[in-house]
Amino acid sequence: MSSPEKVSVAIIGASGYTGVELARLLSVHPLAQLVAVTSRQYAGQRVAKVFPSLRGICDLSFEEPDIAGICGRAEIIFTAVPHKTAMLVAPQILDAGKKLIDLSADFRLRDAAIYEQWYEPHSAAEYLVEAVYGLPELYRDEIRKARLIANPGCYPTSIILGLAPLLRAGVIDATTIIADSKSGTSGAGRGAVISSLYCEVADGFRPYKVGGVHRHIPEIEQELGQLHGGAVTITFTPHLLPVSRGILSTIYAHLNKEVSTERIAALYADMYGQEQFVRLLPPGGIPATQYVRGSNYCDIGFTLDRRTGRIIVMTAIDNIVKGASGQAIQNMNLLCGFPEDTALAAPAFFP
Amino acid sequence: MSSPEKVSVAIIGASGYTGVELARLLSVHPLAQLVAVTSRQYAGQRVAKVFPSLRGICDLSFEEPDIAGICGRAEIIFTAVPHKTAMLVAPQILDAGKKLIDLSADFRLRDAAIYEQWYEPHSAAEYLVEAVYGLPELYRDEIRKARLIANPGCYPTSIILGLAPLLRAGVIDATTIIADSKSGTSGAGRGAVISSLYCEVADGFRPYKVGGVHRHIPEIEQELGQLHGGAVTITFTPHLLPVSRGILSTIYAHLNKEVSTERIAALYADMYGQEQFVRLLPPGGIPATQYVRGSNYCDIGFTLDRRTGRIIVMTAIDNIVKGASGQAIQNMNLLCGFPEDTALAAPAFFP
Amino acid sequence: MSSPEKVSVAIIGASGYTGVELARLLSVHPLAQLVAVTSRQYAGQRVAKVFPSLRGICDLSFEEPDIAGICGRAEIIFTAVPHKTAMLVAPQILDAGKKLIDLSADFRLRDAAIYEQWYEPHSAAEYLVEAVYGLPELYRDEIRKARLIANPGCYPTSIILGLAPLLRAGVIDATTIIADSKSGTSGAGRGAVISSLYCEVADGFRPYKVGGVHRHIPEIEQELGQLHGGAVTITFTPHLLPVSRGILSTIYAHLNKEVSTERIAALYADMYGQEQFVRLLPPGGIPATQYVRGSNYCDIGFTLDRRTGRIIVMTAIDNIVKGASGQAIQNMNLLCGFPEDTALAAPAFFP
Amino acid sequence: MSSPEKVSVAIIGASGYTGVELARLLSVHPLAQLVAVTSRQYAGQRVAKVFPSLRGICDLSFEEPDIAGICGRAEIIFTAVPHKTAMLVAPQILDAGKKLIDLSADFRLRDAAIYEQWYEPHSAAEYLVEAVYGLPELYRDEIRKARLIANPGCYPTSIILGLAPLLRAGVIDATTIIADSKSGTSGAGRGAVISSLYCEVADGFRPYKVGGVHRHIPEIEQELGQLHGGAVTITFTPHLLPVSRGILSTIYAHLNKEVSTERIAALYADMYGQEQFVRLLPPGGIPATQYVRGSNYCDIGFTLDRRTGRIIVMTAIDNIVKGASGQAIQNMNLLCGFPEDTALAAPAFFP
Repeated sequence: MSSPEKVSVAIIGASGYTGVELARLLSVHPLAQLVAVTSRQYAGQRVAKVFPSLRGICDLSFEEPDIAGICGRAEIIFTAVPHKTAMLVAPQILDAGKKLIDLSADFRLRDAAIYEQWYEPHSAAEYLVEAVYGLPELYRDEIRKARLIANPGCYPTSIILGLAPLLRAGVIDATTIIADSKSGTSGAGRGAVISSLYCEVADGFRPYKVGGVHRHIPEIEQELGQLHGGAVTITFTPHLLPVSRGILSTIYAHLNKEVSTERIAALYADMYGQEQFVRLLPPGGIPATQYVRGSNYCDIGFTLDRRTGRIIVMTAIDNIVKGASGQAIQNMNLLCGFPEDTALAAPAFFP
Repeated sequence: MSSPEKVSVAIIGASGYTGVELARLLSVHPLAQLVAVTSRQYAGQRVAKVFPSLRGICDLSFEEPDIAGICGRAEIIFTAVPHKTAMLVAPQILDAGKKLIDLSADFRLRDAAIYEQWYEPHSAAEYLVEAVYGLPELYRDEIRKARLIANPGCYPTSIILGLAPLLRAGVIDATTIIADSKSGTSGAGRGAVISSLYCEVADGFRPYKVGGVHRHIPEIEQELGQLHGGAVTITFTPHLLPVSRGILSTIYAHLNKEVSTERIAALYADMYGQEQFVRLLPPGGIPATQYVRGSNYCDIGFTLDRRTGRIIVMTAIDNIVKGASGQAIQNMNLLCGFPEDTALAAPAFFP
Repeated sequence: MSSPEKVSVAIIGASGYTGVELARLLSVHPLAQLVAVTSRQYAGQRVAKVFPSLRGICDLSFEEPDIAGICGRAEIIFTAVPHKTAMLVAPQILDAGKKLIDLSADFRLRDAAIYEQWYEPHSAAEYLVEAVYGLPELYRDEIRKARLIANPGCYPTSIILGLAPLLRAGVIDATTIIADSKSGTSGAGRGAVISSLYCEVADGFRPYKVGGVHRHIPEIEQELGQLHGGAVTITFTPHLLPVSRGILSTIYAHLNKEVSTERIAALYADMYGQEQFVRLLPPGGIPATQYVRGSNYCDIGFTLDRRTGRIIVMTAIDNIVKGASGQAIQNMNLLCGFPEDTALAAPAFFP
Repeated sequence: MSSPEKVSVAIIGASGYTGVELARLLSVHPLAQLVAVTSRQYAGQRVAKVFPSLRGICDLSFEEPDIAGICGRAEIIFTAVPHKTAMLVAPQILDAGKKLIDLSADFRLRDAAIYEQWYEPHSAAEYLVEAVYGLPELYRDEIRKARLIANPGCYPTSIILGLAPLLRAGVIDATTIIADSKSGTSGAGRGAVISSLYCEVADGFRPYKVGGVHRHIPEIEQELGQLHGGAVTITFTPHLLPVSRGILSTIYAHLNKEVSTERIAALYADMYGQEQFVRLLPPGGIPATQYVRGSNYCDIGFTLDRRTGRIIVMTAIDNIVKGASGQAIQNMNLLCGFPEDTALAAPAFFP
């Protein structure tokens, strides 16, 4: 049960890696109380049994996803379910007057036609118009007032944050963008599939969904297009890293003209200088996933390759914190008027 | 500079893994302020440059270890230096009226002769009498009043906590204790040696210092002997795990007589039922390092092997949290009269 | 199709890790030709598609397990199927006049009653009497003449080889044996289960099946009892390492009386001095899994702990080579009269 | 001592990872005999002590690098030393009438001026004219007749093999090439430096030497320029993977015009169809480092991104086999008139 002074929150679909990460972060949140977690697979089992890291910390049990019942107990609801499932439950949650932070892809694309081209028919397209893309560095004010927040994808977070200042300032050729991204294995979810087994992933590395087919592409292009002021088409190659957590995106683009390193640095500083969760490295500085592991930070570095006229932007995030559950809580903090970094200020675990 | 309401603390020797872990934990401590960190190797460099995980979080620079100067600024001093170095600086710190929490081995053994047998001549043996062994679950009251706390070793923490209830109750044969312990690589420190290289450690596993030669043995035997009420000699085999963090100790002993599982469980509950940082698993439950990673918890499980009359106790800690820096801050909290879990309540990060 | 001068072999159940390892080793075997591999799951698919490591090397496709058809094409048959399945197909293979090397547990225990106590009813118990336990270092002559070889388990290989000289010579107290074993994740098989996912295993470590319940125990005790000349009961604790390959067993026992290091070394040398796949380390030498990775070697070291009167024996093998598929081929070589090290002499890959 | 019918070979600088890998591969080479290995650091120590994986396999001891003495015993000499050292010893070896396969960068660049721009003054520039770039797929005939072979760098091998058919056929715009490469940690060598420690590398990922500064660039551009028939300038970003072995290069370029997938596939087949160590994946197929681990294969896949008009070529090699020591032995086989795949045909280790 929620303390009177805390906001009560629930997680629909809490048995995946983003779900347990939400629970981890909420467990130290002084202003929120987790009151319900659902999981069809584990209904009736204690959270601490399924996720022993939460032993002694979370005394809830997983419930069946009875949306009405949960809406009766929680003010803020996180949906950490697969796309398609989210659009099925969202209307009921919103109609019950609750705030919804959806970690799936279902409300990220403003244009239902594009969603349907990359995913499947959308059954709740009428809610797209009010959904706010939950990237606080771009949409902070809108997030504060929203009731439906579409929490960004992990790859998009790493790529959009990396390119935003450059596209806004028009210093790169938007037709030349290539994002070569590498993600930890938690991004593949907790499904019991052979391709996610330890022995298949460990001590190896591979690209996947190569050639313009990954479903994060329309989301990335939507936001880059917004920043650019016109359509943007990118090449995006995701890769699977033998680590649990972390995304490192190496992003290439042609500079439109000779631009100085100082000018680029100033663009980043202008946009992110006041951002708590974006850490700008000095020019030439190189981010690494191990320095953001477990934290909500996005580290950004860039280097100019004078030989070829390209800029190389490198961003590092923890895919299930800033790339998912941490950002969701950052959004919740904004929604609730809490300090934006509540429960999120802790540094990365290193080593 | 320290906030007036916060206790000011310094770390001597902050460029190793226990040093950076102290800095990580202190960065979210609401009642302590880190005011100085020393490192001969990195003196003059910013902490956040050497440890980019602390970028934006710690704005100190490493200093030369000017003990007098540091004593002028800090009330509590952590020494995270190699043994021998600690005994050289401790007198000056104590004589300056400061509290010292020493993470080295120099003040853990009450008997200087034993120290000198396993280590080397002791230059500050007169301080041993007042040093308190900083295992709060055993010495909480003494810690509160101490000015010199000898923070326990990582292996000893995992083994002593595992055996304490059994030895106190006299239910095991103290001559049959075997501790087979496995530690993550951070335990080997941050020294640039071939045996700690990624390619030498990854995807492999090995014992080391086998056959009664590891220097944690006298410390373990001192505390087990205290609990047993008589000398205890154990077999202890450390192993190197290809992980950064974590110790799992599998501890074997003969039961003195037929004892029920319920009786054993009650012994653990009696001793640890109120302990926040010891999590008892139900009988048959099995701990794992991944569920304590980054946290201050010690998970303990046990199983009786009726076929052989042995008990198998299993404990899991994060070697640089409960096994070093977290426990040091737990000790600091006790020393300062803060709630014991301040800055330490966060759950493990999993996955 | 088999070359006329090569022996034709088939693998029943080739889509697991021991199956693909058999295929890897057979691909460089100059005297054997793999003619068929079966897999219900992948029937009809090319081996090189399921296991791209064999691209360009193995041009077979998986077949349905038509035992009669396979017996028509192969002289030697490896069964790399789960226990219970093996006992169902073995009679047909043997009755067809083929030699069978079974990698499951079904024919390892000489006493059907013990099998049934630890596993389930045995449907082919009449074949147990002729089954030879395929540990060449103990049963080389019998293997040469067998038609049914029960290939040893991975843990048993590591423990039996480690203790054999000591038990034969009667220098240890057989009631004090504790084997603390650590295995790579390939030992858990290629099944799609959550507990084998990368994110569940990586960067962690845990015991499992603690307290005398692992099914390798009767097999180990059978062979140790044989060597000892009387029943032996051990404590055995398996652990899961975050590596793909490798088993390291740390084995403890009380010495019966004061025995010199030289005497122990001589016992090992007497038994293994001529063995190609057992590498004895000098006294005090410590094995490591990374030095046997991918090879058929078993490295053995020991240390006497004079403080406690115990010997600590440490053995390292690759669990899917000497612990499974490599040993199976060693057995095949013996069966066929080939040099015992054919296709097995390659060193470990390190790093 | 060398068998009369075998060619005698020596390794200068055998204590690094490429050195031990040469020793591993040579240990199973039926036509070559390793007669000497040098190492200043380990002179006098047994190879099998420094590299226990070679226990029972290599009974040599490391020697001081007495070049004259070694030339008296070996016909073929591998130099696995840092650049600069190689150019110092090469003249003596060649003048003694021996064949030299140099794994350093010293003889890879045909133009001494370019070498000196990226490295340092060249003291043996007069030998550059006869040095053959040891990439058999491009220079097989020249290698057969050479006495000085400059064994290619690991990254260059992965990138040149990936792009050669496209550049030869002129189907890509050579000004648009971006190579985003990821390498295992063995590529950083066996030096005892903090940045290569397990705890610094494990569970993380990072780029390094970003922006046109890595010394493999001139070597890559030299060979790509040769294939293109004109200067080529590329963007190359190396990254450090938390694995011991493996390089995966993801290479981007604009197609000059609409080219069909079939046409591209035909270009690859034309060039590599007969190559034993290049394995072409079907269009859309994606290579992975785990499928070449420990082997001499280079797996190549490509995908067309029709949305952007780019081709994405992906290549996977084991950086210390095809990227170094395996390729060196492939070159030795050519030099000696042995079958090119002698000692190199074994498949990858998977898992």
